[in-house]
Amino acid sequence: MQLIDGKKISAEIKVEIAREVQQLKDRGCKTPHLAAVLVGHDGASETYVAGKVKACEEVGFKSTLIRYESDIDESTLLNTVHELNRNEDIDGFIVQLPLPDHISEQKVIEAIDPRKDVDGFHPVNLGRMVLGLPAFISATPAGIMELIKRYGIQTSGKSCVVVGRSNIVGKPISILLSQKADPGDATVTLCHSRTRNLDDVVRASDIVIAALGKPGFVTAGMVKEGAVVIDVGITRVKSDVTKSGWKLLGDVRFDEVAPKCSYITPVPGGVGLMTIVSLLKNTLIAAKHEIYP
Amino acid sequence: MQLIDGKKISAEIKVEIAREVQQLKDRGCKTPHLAAVLVGHDGASETYVAGKVKACEEVGFKSTLIRYESDIDESTLLNTVHELNRNEDIDGFIVQLPLPDHISEQKVIEAIDPRKDVDGFHPVNLGRMVLGLPAFISATPAGIMELIKRYGIQTSGKSCVVVGRSNIVGKPISILLSQKADPGDATVTLCHSRTRNLDDVVRASDIVIAALGKPGFVTAGMVKEGAVVIDVGITRVKSDVTKSGWKLLGDVRFDEVAPKCSYITPVPGGVGLMTIVSLLKNTLIAAKHEIYP
Repeated sequence: MQLIDGKKISAEIKVEIAREVQQLKDRGCKTPHLAAVLVGHDGASETYVAGKVKACEEVGFKSTLIRYESDIDESTLLNTVHELNRNEDIDGFIVQLPLPDHISEQKVIEAIDPRKDVDGFHPVNLGRMVLGLPAFISATPAGIMELIKRYGIQTSGKSCVVVGRSNIVGKPISILLSQKADPGDATVTLCHSRTRNLDDVVRASDIVIAALGKPGFVTAGMVKEGAVVIDVGITRVKSDVTKSGWKLLGDVRFDEVAPKCSYITPVPGGVGLMTIVSLLKNTLIAAKHEIYP
Repeated sequence: MQLIDGKKISAEIKVEIAREVQQLKDRGCKTPHLAAVLVGHDGASETYVAGKVKACEEVGFKSTLIRYESDIDESTLLNTVHELNRNEDIDGFIVQLPLPDHISEQKVIEAIDPRKDVDGFHPVNLGRMVLGLPAFISATPAGIMELIKRYGIQTSGKSCVVVGRSNIVGKPISILLSQKADPGDATVTLCHSRTRNLDDVVRASDIVIAALGKPGFVTAGMVKEGAVVIDVGITRVKSDVTKSGWKLLGDVRFDEVAPKCSYITPVPGGVGLMTIVSLLKNTLIAAKHEIYP
């Protein structure tokens, strides 16, 4: 069994990005610049955004954090988005979700210029991805594809099950893995709450992507010998043991499933760590105008 | 075995659309108006566009056909698209594909205002569809969903195989059938040229969508008793028997497969006839501003 080490890979990619940023600067190009908009004081959102800002510093990006209180008007937020769209120094930006109930997340996402949509949530980027065109791919599916690529895991012709049909993980990763590409070319079955005989489908699969957000859902009995298991679940539960008072649980019972696998991602230390580097990569791509000329 | 009669259903829908158009006119609203741009003199394209114009007349739409010779500049065609985007009398328009090699189809498609993209090919519409948001859905997948709905075929929890991963049929129908919706909620496996054990996957499926364009590919031995079979294949082959000198072949060996099915679409007379009514429906939706206010 080979552990897929998200910590190691994400550190490697950060070094690669930092090197490329340095080369850009040496050539006299502008410094890649990511902006993040944070509304309110949600604990998890604060942590995520702080992590993103810190990662920008690590690789040599410029970053800007724009904060609003949670009672901000939708129109004020939309104006900020329009300003960021126009601001030539900003290569890409994100609006941290969730937003307060009185603001339409979809309206905000669709207001972002697709050329600066480094979260890959705009329908144009999703649609282009489905068509197999260059596009900003959202952080979690991009991170999974990167791990598969870096570990040289063969996907062509393999049977793959994706458990969970969320817009930000299940649907896009099912599309990416079935595309005519490498990694890709897998025969993908997308499962969800209405799926019958889910256990049988998972047990028949060479590659299992668990992305339903139910801690410990995937048991040893559901996984075939030699399977590749990617655990996307990150559920925060209270813990008496950790200093923070929280611990993270995956969708897979790692201890019992791991011995059967050819490859498996741990939680924490797997897919989760890849999301920030996916965002950094997208920002670098945006700065280099690689997708939209 | 119940035959899914595309001829009957498409005629019914045309009557429904005609009735709604009359109601709009009675209320003093403008007449829905579809424009089609045809470049060159490709035989199949001429036939398709003529069929679309005729269908517009049948339901009381206004239609405009814009023709160019095949040596038209890309920029001239793009200008026409921009004019159609601005023209307030035009509710929706299509640019008939394929285009000559010197013109980028993707550039033309992306130049169309998504609000008038009644072919549903713009990445915004595809992306919105993936997200489960209201969107123009392209003709063939929309036609399949309509047939399934009108025949009351249950899809929730059913296993479904889609054979063929084209951008205009396989990918979108696989997404639609797995959405949280009715019809939808199926467990969908998307198969393609790299799929191993394709026969086994098809044989295990309650619903089979054959969309690979290989005449007679699906045999009786590949289909389980009681399956629903939707044949999207339309391959034109020469024939000594027909007046036109051509006949259409589906991907399914109808004669041997039909006796095993609970429902099956014939070719011709099945999915193909639904595509024009899907276009008419999209144009009506555009005229009523139901998707984009």
